[in-house]
Amino acid sequence: MDSLAQTIKQHKNATVPASRPIPVLEIFGPTVQGEGMVVGRKTMFVRTAGCDYRCAWCDSAFTWDGSAKDDIRLLSAEHIMAELDQLGQDSYDHVTISGGNPALLPQLAELIDQLHAAGKKVALETQGSKWQDWFLAIDDLTISPKPPSSQMETAWDRLDDIVAKLEAKRSRFCMKVVVFDEADLAYAKQVHRRYPHAPFYVQAGNDQLAEQDAERLLPHLLSRYQWLIDQTMDDAELKSVYVLPQLHTWVWGNKKGV
Amino acid sequence: MDSLAQTIKQHKNATVPASRPIPVLEIFGPTVQGEGMVVGRKTMFVRTAGCDYRCAWCDSAFTWDGSAKDDIRLLSAEHIMAELDQLGQDSYDHVTISGGNPALLPQLAELIDQLHAAGKKVALETQGSKWQDWFLAIDDLTISPKPPSSQMETAWDRLDDIVAKLEAKRSRFCMKVVVFDEADLAYAKQVHRRYPHAPFYVQAGNDQLAEQDAERLLPHLLSRYQWLIDQTMDDAELKSVYVLPQLHTWVWGNKKGV
Repeated sequence: MDSLAQTIKQHKNATVPASRPIPVLEIFGPTVQGEGMVVGRKTMFVRTAGCDYRCAWCDSAFTWDGSAKDDIRLLSAEHIMAELDQLGQDSYDHVTISGGNPALLPQLAELIDQLHAAGKKVALETQGSKWQDWFLAIDDLTISPKPPSSQMETAWDRLDDIVAKLEAKRSRFCMKVVVFDEADLAYAKQVHRRYPHAPFYVQAGNDQLAEQDAERLLPHLLSRYQWLIDQTMDDAELKSVYVLPQLHTWVWGNKKGV
Repeated sequence: MDSLAQTIKQHKNATVPASRPIPVLEIFGPTVQGEGMVVGRKTMFVRTAGCDYRCAWCDSAFTWDGSAKDDIRLLSAEHIMAELDQLGQDSYDHVTISGGNPALLPQLAELIDQLHAAGKKVALETQGSKWQDWFLAIDDLTISPKPPSSQMETAWDRLDDIVAKLEAKRSRFCMKVVVFDEADLAYAKQVHRRYPHAPFYVQAGNDQLAEQDAERLLPHLLSRYQWLIDQTMDDAELKSVYVLPQLHTWVWGNKKGV
């Protein structure tokens, strides 16, 4: 690097702390994406720590409830890249960043840049409570506001602002709502009415997070998916809709890191 | 319609037999698309009769083996539209045309036009043995060449020509290969190498078409899907790949019309 570039980089680092380390709880893969807009896609996962929400049914509560605080590693983008390459070798070209809420981390910009420079596509899911400029660089962005069963409140103004920015830039994104009950479904329809142009996904929620036996879990998840199909098929408000399960829970149950 | 338009329409019908009836075996829905590039999408299905292939494991052999020949109805596009509306009322905006091989039917152009005029999106799956100009009008087109286990021969020149035409027009399409065994997987990789820019799907095949008990079928299909995941995850030739089951067989088994 020549000295001018070095000076620019140092200056940039001084004003925008792009090299701040990233709090990471899990790096795993390659595996299949089990849900949403790229369901089935071969991908690697990076799970960041920390969340501004406390969803009642969160399937990754260890990212925010303190139970895994000793497992959080503060990693540079370079370190994450190296670990992904070690795990995925030459057999992946897609990385999914999940949380927690990765939108709390401005420093993800550097990781996203490095992934793109290495020819990888990047997917990311967030609840839509906070904007980051790097949203516009994500290849498969999922905004997943949380329904009443989560016991969280949606900040509609902030969500409106995020969707407006993404639509103005014609970013590839979708809206996804996890549905456990009728009230959640009403909320999902509210989201779809509010953002009618965004591809729209509803996903059957997993309400048996403590079940350790995948074979016992499967019939229950199947019946929850069937319920959601029944609820949505005759609904004229949900025409342009994708109804999906979490495939990974059907295959691996509640096991982590797959 | 004024007389000039009528004259033009009559003339058009005389040279291009767009009003030839369509041989139809099933019209059903709304339901979820269980496989491929729009898995989960709420859709209606129109299944046409007749196929140029005789795949050993065809899950819709009644479309070509004569067993349902008395159920074939020769329907106009208008009639199909009316039947879709009767079934789906105001709650659908997506129609999937399947077969058999719908690419045998030039007269589908009129149905596709009428669906688009009514604001519906159109998906269609075909094996890629025959071109139709209306391929370019399909919103979600799946080209699914058949692997060795089907006992069919792929006409690569014809497939090359189809993919080249679709890519030249930047049509939205994907390649999908159903995989039952190692030889099929080798074939799938050949397809992906040959058309590296097309979104690529592999799908676990269902080799228990006679099983009537959905609960007995499910663990078997699950293990076939897991096998396919295991085969593909560490494969550097299959980076940009979607690995999916047939969701509808997990939910409804081998039941028809869902």
